[in-house]
Amino acid sequence: MIKLHVAPPHDHSVVIGRSVPFPATNSPVAVIYDPKVAYLAEPLAESAGAESAAVTAGEQAKSFGVFEGILRKMALSGLPRDAELWAVGGGTITDLVGFVAATYLRGIAWRAWPTTTLAMVDAAIGGKTGINLPEGKNLVGAFHPPRGVYAELESLATLPRERFREGLVEAFKHGILSGDAVLLQPWRLSPDSAELEEYLARAAQTKIAVVEKDMRESGERAKLNLGHTLAHALEISSGHRLSHGQAVAFGMLYSALVAVRLGYQDITPHLEELLSWLEPHLPLQASWEDLYSYINRDKKKRGQEIHWVIPVSLGEAKVSTVQDQVLREAFSDWRKAVERYAG
Amino acid sequence: MIKLHVAPPHDHSVVIGRSVPFPATNSPVAVIYDPKVAYLAEPLAESAGAESAAVTAGEQAKSFGVFEGILRKMALSGLPRDAELWAVGGGTITDLVGFVAATYLRGIAWRAWPTTTLAMVDAAIGGKTGINLPEGKNLVGAFHPPRGVYAELESLATLPRERFREGLVEAFKHGILSGDAVLLQPWRLSPDSAELEEYLARAAQTKIAVVEKDMRESGERAKLNLGHTLAHALEISSGHRLSHGQAVAFGMLYSALVAVRLGYQDITPHLEELLSWLEPHLPLQASWEDLYSYINRDKKKRGQEIHWVIPVSLGEAKVSTVQDQVLREAFSDWRKAVERYAG
Repeated sequence: MIKLHVAPPHDHSVVIGRSVPFPATNSPVAVIYDPKVAYLAEPLAESAGAESAAVTAGEQAKSFGVFEGILRKMALSGLPRDAELWAVGGGTITDLVGFVAATYLRGIAWRAWPTTTLAMVDAAIGGKTGINLPEGKNLVGAFHPPRGVYAELESLATLPRERFREGLVEAFKHGILSGDAVLLQPWRLSPDSAELEEYLARAAQTKIAVVEKDMRESGERAKLNLGHTLAHALEISSGHRLSHGQAVAFGMLYSALVAVRLGYQDITPHLEELLSWLEPHLPLQASWEDLYSYINRDKKKRGQEIHWVIPVSLGEAKVSTVQDQVLREAFSDWRKAVERYAG
Repeated sequence: MIKLHVAPPHDHSVVIGRSVPFPATNSPVAVIYDPKVAYLAEPLAESAGAESAAVTAGEQAKSFGVFEGILRKMALSGLPRDAELWAVGGGTITDLVGFVAATYLRGIAWRAWPTTTLAMVDAAIGGKTGINLPEGKNLVGAFHPPRGVYAELESLATLPRERFREGLVEAFKHGILSGDAVLLQPWRLSPDSAELEEYLARAAQTKIAVVEKDMRESGERAKLNLGHTLAHALEISSGHRLSHGQAVAFGMLYSALVAVRLGYQDITPHLEELLSWLEPHLPLQASWEDLYSYINRDKKKRGQEIHWVIPVSLGEAKVSTVQDQVLREAFSDWRKAVERYAG
């Protein structure tokens, strides 16, 4: 078992391991969980004498309807200000429950049991909580760090292989940003491998280091968007058939190709290796014009330029605007590179 | 014009006066306002080149539907993270808009133009924002102090006389709590009196002193609930025909009678004078059992005792539990005292 700590104002620990002990608390507790991990949530609720409610995970969980429904249930049962909310599930559950905790009675404490690789290394760390609007993802939320994060590796046993791998893309991204060679080899891992604990702890530590520097999104934290600018456009243009992790892998490959066009170190072999392991197979017919219009849509309204995270070498990235010509050429390189994953 | 300051973490000024200058800002601005004070909101919006939207004031404005509607409008128009929301209206508008600002893109800046006496001395100061649930008032919200508060006294000219007076009950309450004799004479005031600026500034300063000591609700801040325990029950049992200010005046009289029964200084003459000026006329048939069941409803579920704010003398209050026998006797005293306002 590995215990990490996130410095104030976050000020909480992140425990990663198998059969992680349940925290002891004297506060009333309510547990909100993804029914797929009821086997973890039910004993937790029992240990705290808590009420519990299941919420089906997925982006639709991060809606106003679900948000309001949980708040009303809590109000109806008279949950007091010193209560704790415990979230058990993937990133959509921890995002939602964290936001409920941020706003119920103007803020109560919460704890997170992330049950996907993605949530363990990314979503549950950093205090970002929120829900979606029809107008876009994560447009409503709050910074509200949990009181504790418990990454129970046993919960990964029931995670589909594709999602297990997909979540490690964010860890891989931390590897690109930090230069940590261990993080660049996720293919050695399975849900029951002995190295998993150490791997996830390294990835979580990288994210912790970034959020400690910068709680609000700017500066260092912006680098965590590596690969995400194109990824979001790919997700939308594929009608969300492309998973987030796969989209980010494709997006990072694109950023790496932009870096090459700009004369920086060529790190594309790492990303090709990642994509071979992920085995994405999907339609990638969108043209540069299509994708660019998705990327530009929100920014345009705000009169802002698009900033790209460019991996200038392993362990170093910079955030900057990029000439249109370079973006187009890199896209053409990218099209050729990804042909084998299409269709 | 009087300029007060609220210390960090609030860290903003409260300007009280006539023809208060508009703030200069380089940020994009959206103005949300009560249409009754469009004459103030429209020039403000124009000065900032802002989009604006009218929201009918009242408790129904503090609903999930209105909250979500404003957020979606802001998302649709692409309002960026460095934008400011400007709220122009009474406490329901500032509570709502402050909460929108607290959650849009995980928090943007906002400013408040309170346009009722109640909002000027109470609602707009302290950083409490939020909306209601069908299960109860103010159950969802955030602590999110505004960037500035501008109490434009000209906006009181269109406030109905009953609401003008009602709002000063909270100022009067600050007088009971601080012992400030000026605050105990609101009857000298009208919307155009020269003393109004000074009076409101004193009341606002009392609230500022309390919130500076204690941003979250506990300790000193709990004393601001003086009169509110019975007041909420009276409001509910009257089907909200009794206004909040009037209910608080009745509630403070009750607390003063409890204090007398407990052997403390008799401050009831001040409260009788306040009630004569307010001229409330309403059905007050509820029995002690009825009212007590409203008071006890939420607390009971949480296994908590009811804490009363007792004015032990002018300028001094304490928070404590009170024996059932004393509460009943004081209620009987209260019934006799309020008979003249009933029916």
